[in-house]
Amino acid sequence: MAATPAPIDFWFDFLSPYGYFASTRIDALAAQHGRSVRWRAFYMRGIMQDKLGQTRPFLEVPLKGDYYKRDVPRMARWFGLPFKSGGLSNFISANACRAFWLIDDLDPLLAKRFAREIFEWHHVRATPPNTPEQIAQAAANVGLDPERLDIAAAVQQASAKERLRSETDVAVAAGVWGTPTFVVDGEMFWGADRLHLVDDWLRRGGW
Amino acid sequence: MAATPAPIDFWFDFLSPYGYFASTRIDALAAQHGRSVRWRAFYMRGIMQDKLGQTRPFLEVPLKGDYYKRDVPRMARWFGLPFKSGGLSNFISANACRAFWLIDDLDPLLAKRFAREIFEWHHVRATPPNTPEQIAQAAANVGLDPERLDIAAAVQQASAKERLRSETDVAVAAGVWGTPTFVVDGEMFWGADRLHLVDDWLRRGGW
Repeated sequence: MAATPAPIDFWFDFLSPYGYFASTRIDALAAQHGRSVRWRAFYMRGIMQDKLGQTRPFLEVPLKGDYYKRDVPRMARWFGLPFKSGGLSNFISANACRAFWLIDDLDPLLAKRFAREIFEWHHVRATPPNTPEQIAQAAANVGLDPERLDIAAAVQQASAKERLRSETDVAVAAGVWGTPTFVVDGEMFWGADRLHLVDDWLRRGGW
Repeated sequence: MAATPAPIDFWFDFLSPYGYFASTRIDALAAQHGRSVRWRAFYMRGIMQDKLGQTRPFLEVPLKGDYYKRDVPRMARWFGLPFKSGGLSNFISANACRAFWLIDDLDPLLAKRFAREIFEWHHVRATPPNTPEQIAQAAANVGLDPERLDIAAAVQQASAKERLRSETDVAVAAGVWGTPTFVVDGEMFWGADRLHLVDDWLRRGGW
């Protein structure tokens, strides 16, 4: 009997529209190859300055920032996805990322639904889900029973902050430095525009 | 009678292996859509620090540098191309980029052959073509008559340096900030891994 193949890791920060685009595709892509996907949130702002030495807000980098602003809506159209951003600088994704892991501990499938809801709030409805109350609303929308977990309170606890720091450390230890990143059998691919390479890697078993 | 469609601009610095990969594909891709390609060298090092604020050598950026080192040979295999690099820090591409424009003034097709030769020296034969003498050898290899242009002497003249600075300014004015970059009817695409999007843009006439 063949061993069950390892799940694909999908590392993301809710902040990135490219992560949103990828989130709508990765599970179906993996399923075509008999693979499941483990969704894993990390905190991009936690590594940009310390690890990558990026001290300037991305959109303010000359030329590169302009390209990004044009590319994001273009890629949304290419993927055929609704897109209206809440604004890169308006969204502090820490609470959402912390909540993701707390919900994941209860129910990974619920955590995926929650993640899709968060992506939609920020990247489709232009509503950055920043506050614990917004996080709780998003979680309730996808069926988290507040009796089971008071997520608004939980995301503010030291343990939730520590958990996200620790998962971000796991990401960094795996070599992750951007969002979205896919890890297939130890092989890392960065960017929603590389999903065709992930597909090809799975189809061919590497190259 | 339909107007001849504008050529696609292929902006590159010889330094980047991704530019080498793209150089083996872009003309055939464009031809499938009845398009020609204008090859245009620019000097990446001339904009990295001043425009993008990148003060650290790329390979030394933690995580990102490691990803690059793994990705480059992987992409060479994906494209099915021979690849053996002369080393990112061993190649100062200024002379090669200057020579490209001087040869382009004489004969754009010869300039493309020269460019392919330079890409091959550095990215296939691991021989960084740095010196004026190496540039002259590469040019002779593809058929430049030294009686027509003494390229070793010419690349050292102030006018050749000014020409490359000026073409790099044109690149920046067009919004170019990385190599390779393709501009199709004013629409810009960065990266050899986006050739499928260039193809799609040409096929659909944008989206």
